[in-house]
This record gives sequence, structure tokens and C-alpha cells, in this order.
Amino acid sequence: MQINPPYLMFLGDVPDQLAAKTAHGIVDWRAEWCIGQMRLPGCGADLHLADMTIAEACAKGAKTMIVGVANAGGVLPAHWASSIVAAIEAGMDVASGLHMKLGDNAEIAAAAARHGRQLFDVRHTDQRFATGKGTKRPGLRLLTVGTDCSAGKKYTALALEKEMRTRGFDADFRATGQTGIFISGRGVAIDAVVADFISGAVEWIAPAADPGHWDLIEGQGSLFHPSFSGVTLGLLHGAQPDAFVVCHEPTRTRMRGVQHPLPTIQQVIDLTIACGQLTNPAIRCVGIAINTQALDQAAALHVLAEASAKHHLPAVDPVRFGVGAIVDRITAEYPASTRTKTH
Amino acid sequence: MQINPPYLMFLGDVPDQLAAKTAHGIVDWRAEWCIGQMRLPGCGADLHLADMTIAEACAKGAKTMIVGVANAGGVLPAHWASSIVAAIEAGMDVASGLHMKLGDNAEIAAAAARHGRQLFDVRHTDQRFATGKGTKRPGLRLLTVGTDCSAGKKYTALALEKEMRTRGFDADFRATGQTGIFISGRGVAIDAVVADFISGAVEWIAPAADPGHWDLIEGQGSLFHPSFSGVTLGLLHGAQPDAFVVCHEPTRTRMRGVQHPLPTIQQVIDLTIACGQLTNPAIRCVGIAINTQALDQAAALHVLAEASAKHHLPAVDPVRFGVGAIVDRITAEYPASTRTKTH
Repeated sequence: MQINPPYLMFLGDVPDQLAAKTAHGIVDWRAEWCIGQMRLPGCGADLHLADMTIAEACAKGAKTMIVGVANAGGVLPAHWASSIVAAIEAGMDVASGLHMKLGDNAEIAAAAARHGRQLFDVRHTDQRFATGKGTKRPGLRLLTVGTDCSAGKKYTALALEKEMRTRGFDADFRATGQTGIFISGRGVAIDAVVADFISGAVEWIAPAADPGHWDLIEGQGSLFHPSFSGVTLGLLHGAQPDAFVVCHEPTRTRMRGVQHPLPTIQQVIDLTIACGQLTNPAIRCVGIAINTQALDQAAALHVLAEASAKHHLPAVDPVRFGVGAIVDRITAEYPASTRTKTH
Repeated sequence: MQINPPYLMFLGDVPDQLAAKTAHGIVDWRAEWCIGQMRLPGCGADLHLADMTIAEACAKGAKTMIVGVANAGGVLPAHWASSIVAAIEAGMDVASGLHMKLGDNAEIAAAAARHGRQLFDVRHTDQRFATGKGTKRPGLRLLTVGTDCSAGKKYTALALEKEMRTRGFDADFRATGQTGIFISGRGVAIDAVVADFISGAVEWIAPAADPGHWDLIEGQGSLFHPSFSGVTLGLLHGAQPDAFVVCHEPTRTRMRGVQHPLPTIQQVIDLTIACGQLTNPAIRCVGIAINTQALDQAAALHVLAEASAKHHLPAVDPVRFGVGAIVDRITAEYPASTRTKTH
């Protein structure tokens, strides 16, 4: 899927900011694509964008209405449909992160067919994939992995894209989850792919590229998470990364949603290398990204210094201190990276 | 899904025995369920069962017509539909291993609705699964793993079920692929499950059981196969096996469908234990199953003796010499196994 910006952000009447988490992520990373927000009476979320009507958004060039909100059950409230239909009639495509497909609403499906507009359901994919082949492809690839789910893998990959582009690298973020797809306008929700095609889908997401080009691939789950490890291993083998960054949340004691303790950073490094060598014998760890939000400045710096010394790797908090030290390491270790690209 | 025997085996007019491989597998393991075969003019396959009409099969008590054949593209030939409709009208359910769903044929769907019969598409599942939790469940579990795909994992699990039941163990084969589902009448084609639910589906296939009961779970793929490793790891974590058997084909040099060399048996043992400990710290290897079909008797015995000595494990060819030595090991190592069950 290729979702075309600029975006009109539709928030419906969700009760709070948390329900608009995906929309906030899009604004954080692609403010230049988000030309306004549209809210229904009673909406408790606010992206701090200009409120505008569909006509106003179209006048400003909006190409796609983004339904970047979550609601109980993932269904589309019936009273949102008229706004979506109006956007389609005004010439916009519509992209949604709800579990329920847009086209399952008869009015929306009919409007899209009538006006020849595209409906994107980023949690789903109609793309047919081949099974993965594991054959080495040209181009450089970095995968973010984690000691757990929700440990900063998407944020780290996006921060690396931004910093590497600033320094002239030819680098592209590759989305494997819904928020990442909205942010990059393309990608596949890898956890929604049929199991046989996990690695094949990743080979499609991060295809052969120029030898000096970097794909910065958003990781999912953890090799140590009993719910999602299969997704993580298929993603690792399909991504065939040259480099990986371990993402970690140091105050967590149990993995999300289960009773299992977090693995150590060293365990994640070791198992990622042991498994990753199957499709890229040169795989190595180039950094550690630690979410220090729960720590004060001194404690955060201490945790990072300790991790760096222990693992002989740059250790950063991408949000608090940036990923510069990891990009320094990439610069030193991959001299063949293309540095002439201007973004 | 719970497919009810006895079965009438429908072979259509497939050109040769290979196209009826699934049907042959069912007859090999569940001859007592297969009361006859039905073939159309020109059929090149033969299960060496009595040829019979639908009326004759019904008179003998057939409950389900099995479409256990493969054909180019996995679609249902239009001229097979009338036979399937006739079976439904005679009171049978129908189960198919084709890629195309039975219900996608309008005549078949209408007949099933009209007569209240069930249609089973064993490559698909409508079952909704939870994500895996990785919590230890009561009961004993054995998983067959492999150095590659198609290395004898299903056969070994079925042979273990047969031998263990003969010796009075309370043991059930758990199917994760289409042929296994027909053979056991239930199961889930695990490679067709959405990626997020691989381990959750396995937790559903092999649920909590009596402490002395054995689930013998059919493995899929290999942790070292770049196409399917995600399925294999999710299956390992969901199965949380106490014991595993490594299946190997010694004359193969490359993994099926890809360019990668086969891993060694030791590599498979080591990585299976390293990963499997996440959901069962007591996981251990209890045997090696080697397909010696390509070797003469002396060479086969030599390969087995060598593997046994090297790994300090029973090494058998389940087809040629049976799995008795592995069941001896299980008997010795798991004294809490229930041995009072009569099958």
C-alpha cells in the first residue's frame, strides 16, 4: 500500500488523547504531512492542528483522510461513516487503523467504488506474498529488536532515519506496524500476515537496493516474548540485517501481557546473532536504545554509561539524548554507506 | 474442527498417485476409518480400497467425504462439484485439503446450508485464537522438530502415538498440518494462522491435560529454514514441549526450496533448547529420527549407530525400524507418564 500525503487527521469523537495515540505518532514524525484535524462534537483528543472541514482540507491539498484512532472493539462507529463518505466524495482516499475494514461499511464501500477512491486498512493487507527465500539482497539493512514489545523499536528506527538523513545517508524507514505505515505512507502490518509468509513479506518490504542504501526496519515483539516470538524470528530472517539495535525499557520486570521476566540485553544480542546469521553471516549489534523516561537525568546517564561499558556499544535514549552515538558507530563500521544523498 | 469418521475417500480424476499423497497418508495411518474410495473416469490414483458409490458408502456408515487430493492451483474442478453435492445430499459432511474453500463453490455452499452439513477446509481456519500466554500447562508434551521441512516430523509423531498407545501410554497426536488433521480428525494448519496467533493456536491445539498425558505435536519447518522459521519458533513456544525429537534426512545437502545448507542435528538440538526453555525450562531432546530410505540396510544401521553415539540419544528410522528405542527413553525419563490407558 502507498498512502498519499498530505493528510487530514480524522479523530471522530474519541474520549481522550490515548485513543488518538496513532494520530499523535503521525504528527510527531510527519507534521509536514498533517495539514489539519477534523473532530466531531464531544471529541476529547486534540492534535493541536488547525480544525478544518473537508472542504477546507481539500482546498489545502489534502489527499487522504486518516482515521488514526482506536476505540473499543476496533469497530467503526456508525455515526463516523457520513464524514468518511464526505471525504471520499470530495476526492480523498481514506486510511484506517481500526480492526474493522472500511469497506465492511456498505456506504463507505459504495462511495469509494463510485468515486474511484482507495480505502487503506493498515492492519490488513491484500498483498500476496511469496514465501521468503533468505537469499542475500544488495543494500544495507538495520533492524531494531527488543527485550520486549513496546520498548521503542519504531521510535528508534524513525530517529535513526532522521539522523542518518541529516548526515547525508541514503536511508529509508521500513514500517512493519500500523503507526509506522501511516508515518511512512507504506509498509505491511507484519503481525497480520499469514504465518507462512512472515519472512517473505519482510523481503517485499525491504527489497534489493543500492549497495550503499540503508533500510531501517521497524522490529516487532521479541525473540523472548512467548506470544510473538514467531513474528520476531520471521522478521529477523526476512530482514537479513547487517546491523541491529537492541531496544530496552530498564524499569520493566515482566514482559507485556505475560508473566515472563525480561531477558537481558546480552541474551537478546546473543540470540539475535545466533539466529540472524542464517540469512546474514555478517550480522552485528551496533547500539543499544534505552527508554529512560522513568529515570531522572543522573540515573538515566548512569544507566546508559553502564550499558555502554558492559556491552562495548553506544547506548542512547533516542528521545532524551538522540541517536547520534549509534550513527557515529554506523559511520565508522560501514564505510560503503552512501553519503551523497540529499533529502 | 472435528471431522467425523468413517471417511469416503474422493479422488476425482487426478492423474497420478502423487496427487493423492494426502489421501495415501490418511489410509496409511487410519485404514480403519477409510471405508472406500470414489473415483471419476480417468483417475490415475488408487488407494487400494473398495470403489463405491455415495449410496454404498452411506450404507456402510460413511460420515465424511474426504477430498484428499492436490491439483494444479489448488482449485476445485467444476466437474467435481456434483459428486460433492451428492455426498452432502446423502447426509455426509465434506472435508477438503484444497487451497480453494469448498464454500466458495455456490452449489456446494447451498447444498451444505440446505442439508445442515459441515464443510471443512483443513488449510483454513475460522477459529479465533487468543495470543499465546506461555504459561505452563499441566500434561506432558513432545514436539517433533527438524533439520528441514519434510524430514519426517508428522510420521514420527504418529509413529510415537501408535507405539506409546500400544504400550499403554495415554497419548494423543496433535496435528498442525493438513494431512495430520485428516488423520486425527482435528487440528489447525498452523502455517495458515495469522502471524500474531501462532503460539496461541498451538496452546489451543494442545491444551491443559492430565499430568501424565502426552500430546505428540506435529512440528513444522525448521528454526534454520529462512522461509518458515517464524512458524517453527511460534510452534515451539506454544507447544512448550517437555521432550523433542529431531527429524533428519541425511542425504539432503540443501534445505527445501532455498539455497541454504542443512544445519547439523547438534545445531538443531542446541537452538531448540535455547529457545524452548522460555516456556519450558525442563525441555530436553529424547531422540533422533532419521529417514534412511536412500540408504541400504548396512549404511542405514551405520548412520543410526553413529548419530546415537555422537548425541548419546536413541536414533531410529521410524519407517524402517520403528520408534521403540525412543519410547524406551521416554519410559525411563518420564516415570509420571500415565500407563493405564487402554486404546
